[in-house]
Amino acid sequence: MTITPERAADRRDPLTAQRLHSLLAPESIAIIGASDKSAWSQLTFKNLRDGGFTGNIHLVNRRGATTHGQATYTSVGELPEVPGLAVVLTSGTAVPSVLDDGAKLGISNFIVLAGGFSEGGAQGQALQDHVVATARANGQLILGPNNLGFVNTWGKVSAFSHFTPAPMLTGGVGLLSQSGALAIFLLPFLQSRDVGISHAITLGNEAMISVTDGLEYLLHDENTKVIALYVEQIRDCARFADLAGRAREAGKPIVMFKVGRGKTAARVAAAHTGALVGDDRVIDAVCRQQGVIRVESMEDLAVTAGLLDGYGEMPGHRVGFVTGSGAMCALISEKADAVSLTLPELSAETVAALREDGLPESATAQNPLDVTGVVAVDPSIMYKAQRRVLNDPDVDIAVFNSQLPQSKEHAAMSSAMAEETILSAAGSDKPVIMMGFLPVESTEFGRQWRRQMGMAHLVESYDRGVPALARAIWWSQRRRDLAAVDPVAPPAVIARPEGTGDWTEADIGAFLGGHGVPYVPATVVGSADEAVAAADGMGYPVVLKIASRDIAHKTDVGGVRLDLADGEEVRAAHNDILARVGAAQPAALISGITVSPMRGRGTELLVGVVRDPDWGLVLVVGFGGVLVEVLRDTALRVLPVSRDEVRSMLDELRGIEVLRGFRGGEAADLDAVVEAVHRIALVAEGLGDGVEELEINPLLVQGDRVEALDALIRWSDSPS
Amino acid sequence: MTITPERAADRRDPLTAQRLHSLLAPESIAIIGASDKSAWSQLTFKNLRDGGFTGNIHLVNRRGATTHGQATYTSVGELPEVPGLAVVLTSGTAVPSVLDDGAKLGISNFIVLAGGFSEGGAQGQALQDHVVATARANGQLILGPNNLGFVNTWGKVSAFSHFTPAPMLTGGVGLLSQSGALAIFLLPFLQSRDVGISHAITLGNEAMISVTDGLEYLLHDENTKVIALYVEQIRDCARFADLAGRAREAGKPIVMFKVGRGKTAARVAAAHTGALVGDDRVIDAVCRQQGVIRVESMEDLAVTAGLLDGYGEMPGHRVGFVTGSGAMCALISEKADAVSLTLPELSAETVAALREDGLPESATAQNPLDVTGVVAVDPSIMYKAQRRVLNDPDVDIAVFNSQLPQSKEHAAMSSAMAEETILSAAGSDKPVIMMGFLPVESTEFGRQWRRQMGMAHLVESYDRGVPALARAIWWSQRRRDLAAVDPVAPPAVIARPEGTGDWTEADIGAFLGGHGVPYVPATVVGSADEAVAAADGMGYPVVLKIASRDIAHKTDVGGVRLDLADGEEVRAAHNDILARVGAAQPAALISGITVSPMRGRGTELLVGVVRDPDWGLVLVVGFGGVLVEVLRDTALRVLPVSRDEVRSMLDELRGIEVLRGFRGGEAADLDAVVEAVHRIALVAEGLGDGVEELEINPLLVQGDRVEALDALIRWSDSPS
Repeated sequence: MTITPERAADRRDPLTAQRLHSLLAPESIAIIGASDKSAWSQLTFKNLRDGGFTGNIHLVNRRGATTHGQATYTSVGELPEVPGLAVVLTSGTAVPSVLDDGAKLGISNFIVLAGGFSEGGAQGQALQDHVVATARANGQLILGPNNLGFVNTWGKVSAFSHFTPAPMLTGGVGLLSQSGALAIFLLPFLQSRDVGISHAITLGNEAMISVTDGLEYLLHDENTKVIALYVEQIRDCARFADLAGRAREAGKPIVMFKVGRGKTAARVAAAHTGALVGDDRVIDAVCRQQGVIRVESMEDLAVTAGLLDGYGEMPGHRVGFVTGSGAMCALISEKADAVSLTLPELSAETVAALREDGLPESATAQNPLDVTGVVAVDPSIMYKAQRRVLNDPDVDIAVFNSQLPQSKEHAAMSSAMAEETILSAAGSDKPVIMMGFLPVESTEFGRQWRRQMGMAHLVESYDRGVPALARAIWWSQRRRDLAAVDPVAPPAVIARPEGTGDWTEADIGAFLGGHGVPYVPATVVGSADEAVAAADGMGYPVVLKIASRDIAHKTDVGGVRLDLADGEEVRAAHNDILARVGAAQPAALISGITVSPMRGRGTELLVGVVRDPDWGLVLVVGFGGVLVEVLRDTALRVLPVSRDEVRSMLDELRGIEVLRGFRGGEAADLDAVVEAVHRIALVAEGLGDGVEELEINPLLVQGDRVEALDALIRWSDSPS
Repeated sequence: MTITPERAADRRDPLTAQRLHSLLAPESIAIIGASDKSAWSQLTFKNLRDGGFTGNIHLVNRRGATTHGQATYTSVGELPEVPGLAVVLTSGTAVPSVLDDGAKLGISNFIVLAGGFSEGGAQGQALQDHVVATARANGQLILGPNNLGFVNTWGKVSAFSHFTPAPMLTGGVGLLSQSGALAIFLLPFLQSRDVGISHAITLGNEAMISVTDGLEYLLHDENTKVIALYVEQIRDCARFADLAGRAREAGKPIVMFKVGRGKTAARVAAAHTGALVGDDRVIDAVCRQQGVIRVESMEDLAVTAGLLDGYGEMPGHRVGFVTGSGAMCALISEKADAVSLTLPELSAETVAALREDGLPESATAQNPLDVTGVVAVDPSIMYKAQRRVLNDPDVDIAVFNSQLPQSKEHAAMSSAMAEETILSAAGSDKPVIMMGFLPVESTEFGRQWRRQMGMAHLVESYDRGVPALARAIWWSQRRRDLAAVDPVAPPAVIARPEGTGDWTEADIGAFLGGHGVPYVPATVVGSADEAVAAADGMGYPVVLKIASRDIAHKTDVGGVRLDLADGEEVRAAHNDILARVGAAQPAALISGITVSPMRGRGTELLVGVVRDPDWGLVLVVGFGGVLVEVLRDTALRVLPVSRDEVRSMLDELRGIEVLRGFRGGEAADLDAVVEAVHRIALVAEGLGDGVEELEINPLLVQGDRVEALDALIRWSDSPS
């Protein structure tokens, strides 16, 4: 992703929710540049009217022609009152004068539809800068430019300049979209899925109102229960992370669809860590840490937000499904497995009760439960089964297969059944989620029927609904987990030592070891006798390596000897290294020879911290080795991290089985691994601005011995 | 997956297409067990009538009561003509007598709705056996039992006993479903996506008509252009593979949704290969080899089949997209990337022409192409751009964003634009695919409008459409690739050698080496002098290993010595091994000591062949090592395989980058790897029934040296 740097001209204080509210809930509206010839104008007017706007709608048309069947004003100055919002449909170049005319009258809030601003090259950027400066000078606020406006359902303001259902259904989903075009498709889709919204705000160029401003507004808006984001670029990352945390604490899930997968910034990276950290993976990490639900399509955005609005926080993670078909059970089961949704076994009491209720012996009393075709003979078996599964002590959430009737005739045939199903749910303090099998558009009849029946929501399909439920459960658990964690005190500041420019590997080892990172013993010696003495002290076998700040690739110059079995071999190797290195690189400054114990086979981890320009220090944990690097089995977090968080990073690795002791191999002491990784993170955090990259490669894990064997630090002012 | 073994009672000759046709296209129909009280009866009668059935519909009701507004017969014997099909809605136990009564009249074809047959335990199985025996004796054919019937749109027969749109839209998709319940949801979904069908056949218990019978029928049915399968279990695997190959050759894509992911049979496996081969992964391999498109949801089944029915075989793989929004381009681009769809750069000529046509400088002339909001001012820029992209020499397939109007009003606003878009496509010999952005149900108005406009099909959404297009391209390429390949002659039969029970690793190596598998040199010696002579001949360093059929874990008993640098070390090691093994396992039969050259570091592959009970010998290629095994980076094929197919297996491995020379590492000679793997496959195939499992672990790859270092063979009668 190419990050547009924040320009000085764009810098400003965050908008208050109150200020934004005045734009989103005006008492009267003027359309400036209204014209029967303009589709934008027609649609804006129609949406406002159909959306039930109760205030005055004034039209400004240069020629004063009757427009949309209504008398018009030829200029802003003629307006009979100060509109709470002006929708500006003029060309971009006319906008500054509209703002100034508006200022004379006292208009504070504008939507600017026109494009050709910052998205249109240097000239457009200059125009946008001028517009923003004008608005600021006038104390005015602009949504856009280059956007389609917004819908505020509870306030009955459909100030949207393109096709949209009007009125949109009221509900708890607050939508922010950095694309207007996508909103054109998403609004009818939300309606068709019977997902009600509080707001839908398109942001355009975000000249004065950014996605983070919108986020803060929706965080405070009492009608908004779930925040849905379509995002292409987050500019104010720290504020985003902060707001995400506050939303989670407030119990408002954020569901985000962000493009940018697969794009990787070109990063200065001396070691491997940089290459392992793509921008998008950092955003994944931020989402994971802050409890933001990230989805991969517009459909999933709508379905997940709808489920959360309808059913709220999930009290647990164990889900019981009841359906009327074995095939549906198989499909649901596979989908659940794919998204790691927990489907507990039904308890013995439930199984016995199901049999008593008439579940045939041919039906397996399992979860998902297939009640079988016997319901065609006795539908009550279905309702009874639903209640049994719901009441199972091992079930936290029940999901019943259901659908909305599309018409009166359809309802006549299926209402009794659906009514009983809904009754099955009534009175339980567990969520009972109604889920369709394949998506069917809701009709006005179906939506009214749902409300009359007291059904909170129908999730459109199992294929999108099961993953959406898994996300809702994840969010709920994350919220509880993070609420239970005490705030972590910032780690001790570590001053950058003197002379790091001359550091050898042994110095880095000593530095890390001094700050609690387990590092393989390493003694730098100045003679063969000292080498033998050091080796005798460590025990054999040992490794000898040349110690020199000037030599990056020690093996290439004959600077490494492994597996030395006794003092004689150490002595010979010491002299051999000096001779070979001296021949290969005579100008290198030699600090001595490093002696370390030789370690046997174990699992090699890579633990790195690298600075992300947007999000700060990012911790990466993965398996070492070329092949594993190719397979990209790594976990990321933005610092700071708790030990629990480090543990969850290990759990994310697909190769974790190896650390747990695969095929009779030795199991690693995972607590010791967590401790080592956490120490590394604390050192990086302690160094703060002083460090750009810190990498341990490998961190060798052998049962309960966890040790860094090699490390690299790139300091902030180091040449890259 | 638990495979129900094929029972002797079920074995029979495949049905001819002609025989099945007589059931699926009857000229008159009787409903036996018709009743106003039965929903099944109501719906069957209604579907037949609404579906436009033109023949007689006779009703048999025990009491002769007027039913569905029509006079009835009290018994089958009273029917005034021989119906071409009898839909039997009676209880299961009454079915044998219905068949016998039908036989007296001469009725040959039946649908049996009732359940309680083979799906209902031993008693049900006995009833089913009796029913099948009766039908066979009478020369009758039964669809089901325990099914919902079928729809034949071209023949106007909606013999379906549940809710379904009637008439279903005629079209080219032939559907076979092993679940009736899923068909209840899928049929309206297909209709809502404007996907026309030729047949939809639910198979129930497949007592007499199996999914392979249905497949063969649809292969011959001229109205069927695409075959869609919902499958839970394939019983006749060899016939399925054969029919799949014939369908591909005939240009009829098969799109299959099969449940069973994640299930693994418990398999006898002496080595690793068995554990790496899950049943479902074998089915994936069969699909890949035969060109069967496997999808992961009902929605994808419908969308992929619809796209293929509408647009047929794809002539190439390079796709040009034209849309009206940058955000849509970003989303499409990411989705395309996720499914490896090729979006070529637009040619310089196309870019120049787009600019000439008025594409603004602010719009990047890229693929996917965003024509930008300028189309609001001049819509012709959109049509011109569509034509330019379509005519780009680097584009094989164009995709235009489009939608169906839902009503007359909607059409009035968008028809002109859509018409021009459709005109853009007319006359081109390249496929031009119309694709929506988010799914919208088609209305009767929209479907008629589409046909009037001459639009072949509208693919519902990019999120399902882009992957569906990738699948269609894959199928088309696979079809061409396989058509270009000469049939492979079966390999030479290899007789199982004598005395394999006593074989040591060296014997296996000699056997494989003798059949062209590159195997590290290995000489079994009987004395230290011979060991030194052998090592001198090979060059140092060498490895010594104990050679004994009785010792499985050589290292554990001190039976392996690595990296021996000269004759002195070899001599010492030889005697050391004999001493240690003699102490650890004095009763072991020692054949000698194996001397081999010591190989350095390289990439270790695992190449294995294992017998699958359904599909025969399966070849597995993956990376060696515990961590890689955990990450499950393997590719599978059913034997036989060509060298090209082996090459494509390597390309499937995520770790292939390592073989290609990752981070400056040595690139492997992939041709040599392919040759070695192919040789291994030929040996296994040559051994045929004689072998259960053959595993090379590792096959060491070092640049252009590819060598098996160790191998294992489990012969057919070996103890497991």
